[in-house]
Amino acid sequence: MIRVGVIGYGYWGPNLVRNFMEAQGSTVVAVCDLKPERLAMVQNRYPSIRTLTNWRELLNDPDIDAIAVATPVSSHFELAMAALAANKHVLVEKPLASTCEQALQLIDEAARRQRVLMVDHTFVYTGAVRKIRELIASNALGEIYYYDAVRVNLGLFQHDVNVIWDLAIHDLSIIDYVLPSRAVAVSATGISNIPGQPENVAYITLFFANPQIAHVHVNWLTPVKVRHTLIGGSEKMILYDDLEPSEKVKIYDRGVTVSQSPEAVYEMLVSYRSGDMWAPRLDATEALLTEALHFIDCINNGTKPETDGQAGLRLIQIVEAAERSLRARGKLIEI
Amino acid sequence: MIRVGVIGYGYWGPNLVRNFMEAQGSTVVAVCDLKPERLAMVQNRYPSIRTLTNWRELLNDPDIDAIAVATPVSSHFELAMAALAANKHVLVEKPLASTCEQALQLIDEAARRQRVLMVDHTFVYTGAVRKIRELIASNALGEIYYYDAVRVNLGLFQHDVNVIWDLAIHDLSIIDYVLPSRAVAVSATGISNIPGQPENVAYITLFFANPQIAHVHVNWLTPVKVRHTLIGGSEKMILYDDLEPSEKVKIYDRGVTVSQSPEAVYEMLVSYRSGDMWAPRLDATEALLTEALHFIDCINNGTKPETDGQAGLRLIQIVEAAERSLRARGKLIEI
Amino acid sequence: MIRVGVIGYGYWGPNLVRNFMEAQGSTVVAVCDLKPERLAMVQNRYPSIRTLTNWRELLNDPDIDAIAVATPVSSHFELAMAALAANKHVLVEKPLASTCEQALQLIDEAARRQRVLMVDHTFVYTGAVRKIRELIASNALGEIYYYDAVRVNLGLFQHDVNVIWDLAIHDLSIIDYVLPSRAVAVSATGISNIPGQPENVAYITLFFANPQIAHVHVNWLTPVKVRHTLIGGSEKMILYDDLEPSEKVKIYDRGVTVSQSPEAVYEMLVSYRSGDMWAPRLDATEALLTEALHFIDCINNGTKPETDGQAGLRLIQIVEAAERSLRARGKLIEI
Amino acid sequence: MIRVGVIGYGYWGPNLVRNFMEAQGSTVVAVCDLKPERLAMVQNRYPSIRTLTNWRELLNDPDIDAIAVATPVSSHFELAMAALAANKHVLVEKPLASTCEQALQLIDEAARRQRVLMVDHTFVYTGAVRKIRELIASNALGEIYYYDAVRVNLGLFQHDVNVIWDLAIHDLSIIDYVLPSRAVAVSATGISNIPGQPENVAYITLFFANPQIAHVHVNWLTPVKVRHTLIGGSEKMILYDDLEPSEKVKIYDRGVTVSQSPEAVYEMLVSYRSGDMWAPRLDATEALLTEALHFIDCINNGTKPETDGQAGLRLIQIVEAAERSLRARGKLIEI
Repeated sequence: MIRVGVIGYGYWGPNLVRNFMEAQGSTVVAVCDLKPERLAMVQNRYPSIRTLTNWRELLNDPDIDAIAVATPVSSHFELAMAALAANKHVLVEKPLASTCEQALQLIDEAARRQRVLMVDHTFVYTGAVRKIRELIASNALGEIYYYDAVRVNLGLFQHDVNVIWDLAIHDLSIIDYVLPSRAVAVSATGISNIPGQPENVAYITLFFANPQIAHVHVNWLTPVKVRHTLIGGSEKMILYDDLEPSEKVKIYDRGVTVSQSPEAVYEMLVSYRSGDMWAPRLDATEALLTEALHFIDCINNGTKPETDGQAGLRLIQIVEAAERSLRARGKLIEI
Repeated sequence: MIRVGVIGYGYWGPNLVRNFMEAQGSTVVAVCDLKPERLAMVQNRYPSIRTLTNWRELLNDPDIDAIAVATPVSSHFELAMAALAANKHVLVEKPLASTCEQALQLIDEAARRQRVLMVDHTFVYTGAVRKIRELIASNALGEIYYYDAVRVNLGLFQHDVNVIWDLAIHDLSIIDYVLPSRAVAVSATGISNIPGQPENVAYITLFFANPQIAHVHVNWLTPVKVRHTLIGGSEKMILYDDLEPSEKVKIYDRGVTVSQSPEAVYEMLVSYRSGDMWAPRLDATEALLTEALHFIDCINNGTKPETDGQAGLRLIQIVEAAERSLRARGKLIEI
Repeated sequence: MIRVGVIGYGYWGPNLVRNFMEAQGSTVVAVCDLKPERLAMVQNRYPSIRTLTNWRELLNDPDIDAIAVATPVSSHFELAMAALAANKHVLVEKPLASTCEQALQLIDEAARRQRVLMVDHTFVYTGAVRKIRELIASNALGEIYYYDAVRVNLGLFQHDVNVIWDLAIHDLSIIDYVLPSRAVAVSATGISNIPGQPENVAYITLFFANPQIAHVHVNWLTPVKVRHTLIGGSEKMILYDDLEPSEKVKIYDRGVTVSQSPEAVYEMLVSYRSGDMWAPRLDATEALLTEALHFIDCINNGTKPETDGQAGLRLIQIVEAAERSLRARGKLIEI
Repeated sequence: MIRVGVIGYGYWGPNLVRNFMEAQGSTVVAVCDLKPERLAMVQNRYPSIRTLTNWRELLNDPDIDAIAVATPVSSHFELAMAALAANKHVLVEKPLASTCEQALQLIDEAARRQRVLMVDHTFVYTGAVRKIRELIASNALGEIYYYDAVRVNLGLFQHDVNVIWDLAIHDLSIIDYVLPSRAVAVSATGISNIPGQPENVAYITLFFANPQIAHVHVNWLTPVKVRHTLIGGSEKMILYDDLEPSEKVKIYDRGVTVSQSPEAVYEMLVSYRSGDMWAPRLDATEALLTEALHFIDCINNGTKPETDGQAGLRLIQIVEAAERSLRARGKLIEI
C-alpha cells in the first residue's frame, strides 16, 4: 500500500486526493495547504487524513512513500526537489518545473536516488488519447500530414503564467505522446489584450524533421468552448472532439490519392477518397485514476512512467521556445 | 440596362451569368470560354446569349458595357487589362491579379479611363459579413481583441495556386472589410504534404498597429468541413459559423472586466461576465446578386465599389507577404 | 429511349424534368402546365422541349411513352387514370391518389393494360434509406423494437392537404420500405392551430402484429428544422439524421442484454451494452436520378417497381386511418 | 435552522443531503438507509451526520423538523404519511405517491397538521424552466399552439415502474408549471420490448380545453441522449435543449401570420415570419439548491410550495390516465 502525501488542495488537489483514495494500492495519509479553510474541507470529507500547513513536516514523515504536488507552477521545482531529497517518489502537476534547467536537476536527482519522478500530463491517461496513440502506432493513418488542436474558452484568467503554460501544454503533451516524431523547431504568435497581464491568445506551429506540421491554438477569451483536434494522414484522418459526450474520437476513411501516371499531370494529379466513418468505444475510466494506478505500478514494479521527467522536460523546452518565438512575433526557434 | 460579357464558364462563371441575368438593370449578352462543351451548356440554358471562344472578339463588341472575368488566376491581369483598354467596366473574380505590381497597373488604368474596377470578394456581400461590419462599426464589440478564422475541408486540390490564394483570401477579404484597422505585418507557417504540389495547409497571423491580432487557418485536407470565425472584443464577442443554416452570426454578451482597484491586485484583477446571446436575422439575398446590383450601381452612379481595386491590392499584399513568411517558417514580414 | 411527358411544372416538376433529361435512356419531350410563366421557364432552360397547357393533348401524343404527374394531389387520380387509358406508363408524385378506392382503380387499370405504375416515394431512392433497408434485411439490428421519426420545420403551409398527407407520407414510405412487417393498426393525434386550415401538427403511432412500434411526428410550425429518425433493435440501433451533410446514417453497437438466470430476477435483469459507432459511406447519387433510372428499367425490362401501385395504396390506407384516428383523438383504427 | 432527516441514500439521496447541508437555513442531522454500505459512505463524507437503518426511529426523533424521502416509488406513501403523522414537514421525491388516492390522503394529512408537503419536481427549479414560465406568463409567445418534449436515451431500465413514471413525469411537471391551462384528456401509446418488463417506450398526447396540444416522447432504449423541447406560439417559439451547456433556452421570433383579407383566400392565407433568435442568460444555481431554499422558506414563512401536494396529485392523475390509455392503444381518457 503506497502512502501518499498531497501538497496543495486548491483546484486540482481534491482530484488527486479522491483518486489516490479510490485507487487499489494507495491511500492518502496527509494533505498540506497554506489555507486553513481548505484543510477544513479535507477534514470534513476525509476525517482519517492528517492535515498540516508546513510541507517540510510532511516530507519528514517517514511513513509517507510518495508526494503529489499540486501547487502554483513557481513552487513545483522547490517542492519536488525537496521531496526527492527526502527519498519520496514524486508526482508533479503539469508543468514539471518553470525552466528546462530545473527539470534537468529533478531528473538527475530522481535518477540518483532511484525514485519515481512523474508529471501529471492528465490527457495522456484518457481513453481517447490512448486510442489515438494506438491507431497511429499501428500505422492506421498512414503517413501523418498534420496535427491541429484548438483549446479555447472563456476560462480562468491566470496571473502568473500565460495561456501557453496553462492550456497549450495539454495539447503539447498529447502531441508528444501520440506522434512518433519530435518537433525540431517552433514558430509562435500571440497577444496580451489586457495590459499588464500574461498573453491570453497564442498560436504555436511545430516543425518536424519529416514533412509534417502541428499547430496549437489556445485562447482564454472566447465566447464558446472548443476542444477540437484534427489529425490528417495519407490513409485515414481523425477528429477528436473532447466535448462530445461519447463519440470523442472519429476515424474517417477519407483522403487524397496522388496519381503517378504522366497523363494525369495536367489535370487530376490528386483525387479524393471518401469512405466510412468509425467511432470506437473508448475506455471511460477517469484519467486520473488510470494515472494513479500507473504511478503505483511504477513505484512497486520499477515500470518507466509514460509521462516521466524526460517527457516533462521536452514540453518545457517547447514551451520556452514558443514563448521566445511569440515575443519575437513568429521568429523560428530551434529546439 | 448594363450589357455584360462573361469570360470563363467553369466553376464560378455560371453563377455570374445567372445573377447578372436576374439582377434588375443588367443582362448578359455574351459568354466566352475555350471549351465548346461549356458553351453548349450556356446555349442550352440561355438561348438568347451569344457564345464565343475568342475573348478579343468579345472585348471588341461595342455593344458590351462591362466584362466579368472568371478564369484561372494567371489570366486575370491580361484579361482585365485588355477589357479596361477596351473601355469596359470590369469585375474580376478573386484575386484581382497575381502580383501587387499587376494590381497597381489595373488600378491606374481604371482611374485613367474612369472605368469601374471591382473585385469579386463574394463574402463581403453576404448578409452575415455585412451584419458583422455593422456591429463592429457601431462599436458594439468595444475594443477588438482578436479575429480568428478556420476554413478547412476535403476540398478541391488546386494545382496552380496554394491554399492561401484559394481559401485564405476569403477570410482576408472579410477581415479587410469588417475591421477598421489594417494589418502591418504577417507571420505564416504551412506545408505541402503532397510532393510537387502547392501548400495545402497554412496558418497566418496578422499583426496590427494596435494591440489586436488576427489569425486564419486554411487546409484542403481535413475530414470535416469547418467555417468558424471568432471575434473577441472587450464588450461583446461574435461567433460566425457559415455552416449554420440560419443562425450564422451569434453575438455573446460575454467578456472580462478588469478591475482597477488596488485591493484587487493580488487576486481577481480580471473577472468574468456572462450575459445573453443573440442571433440577428440576416439578409438572405444571394451574395452574388447583391454584388451584381452594387456593380451596376457603381457603373450607373459613380459609386465607389466596396471591393475596389485598392481592396484587391491590399489582399494581394498580404497574400504575398504570407507566402514569403510561410516559406521562411514564420519569419515576420512587414506589409 | 423512353420519351417522357411531364404534367405540372410547379415545385417538383422542374426536378423531374432535370432528372429525366439527365438519365441515360430517357428524355423529356413535352411539359404541360396551366401557367404560361411556368412554361416560359421551361422554354428558357430547355428550348428543345415542347410546352403546352392542355394535358389531353399531351396524352394524345403517340410519340410519348411515359407520363410523370406532378400536380396538386386532388388531380393525381384523374391525370394518372387518363394517362394509363392512353397506354402510357405513369409515374405519380406522392401520394398516388386521394383515396384507397382511387388507388385500387389505378392498380387495376395498369395491370389490365400492362403499363408501369409507379409512385414517387423519393426517399426510398436515397442512399441513406437503401442502406438502412440493407442493414435491417441482413438482420444486423436483431429484433426491431421501435422506429421513431421526427420531420418538423417552419415549412410551407398547405391549404388543400394536412401535414400528414404532406410530410408524414415521407416517413410512412420509408417505414414501408425498410421494415419487413406491415402496420395493422394506427392511433393518431394532432391539431389545427390556424382556424379553417388543415391540421399542422400530427403524431402517428403504428402498431404491428409483433411487439414493435413505429411513431411519426410531423409539424409545419417549428422554429428549427429536424429530420431525425431512431431505429432500435436488440443488437444494434440506428440514428438517421437527414440534415447531416455526410454521416446521415450512424449505427450504434448499443443495446440491452436480458439475463435469463433466476438469480438476476430481483436486480439486474437488463444490463447495458455500449460499443463502437459506425457511419457507412452512402451512395450520393441524387434520389430522383436513381428513381428515374429505375422507372426506365421497369418500362424496358418489366421489372417490378420498388414503389409500385400497391406501395402507394398501402400508404393511403395508413394515412386515411391516421386521419380518422386523429379526428377521434387517438381512437385505434385497424388497417 | 431547519433540521432535516433523509430517508434513502441510493441514487438521489446523496444530492438531497449535499444540498440541505449547503443551503443557508438547513442542516442534515440523520440519514436512514437499509444498506450499511450506503450509510458508511455517509459517515465517510459527513462524520457529523447520524446514520440509522430504522426509519421509524428517525421519525421519532423530536429534534428533526423535516423529512426528505428518496426511496423507491412504492414506499413513498407509507413513509410520507408516517412522517406527517409524526408532525414533520415532508419533501417527497417524484412521484408523490403511487395512486391519486394516496396523494389525496397525503394532502389531507398535511393540511390537517399544517405541515409543508412538497414534491421534488426538480426541473421546476432550474433556471431554464423558470425562464420559460416567465416568458409564457408575460405573453411573449402569444397564443400557445403546441408543446413537444423528447426525453430519450439508453438509460437505467427500471423494474418496478415504467418509462412514464420514470421519465415522462419530468416533462409533465414542466408542462404543469409553465402552461397556464390544464390538460383535460390524454391519449397514449407505447410498448414493452423486453418480455415481462415495464413499458420502455411511450408517446403521450395531452389535450386541453383550448386549441392547444402537448406531446411527450420518452424511451429508455435509444442510442443517443435527447432532451429537446419545442414550444410554439403565435408570436414566438422556444427551443429548450437541456443538453446545451449554456444556451439551453432559445427564443425564435418566427411564426406565421394569417391574412384576413378576402383576396388572400385562395393563395397565401398563411405567410411566414422570420426574425432574430435570442438566448437569455439563465440562473445557473443548482436546481436542488433552489428547491431546498424554497422548502425552507415554506416551512419558515408559510409560503405555498410551487410544487405542492396538488401539483403532485395532478401529475399522478395524468400518469394514471396515460397508462390506461397506453394499455388500450391510444384510447382517449378524460382527466
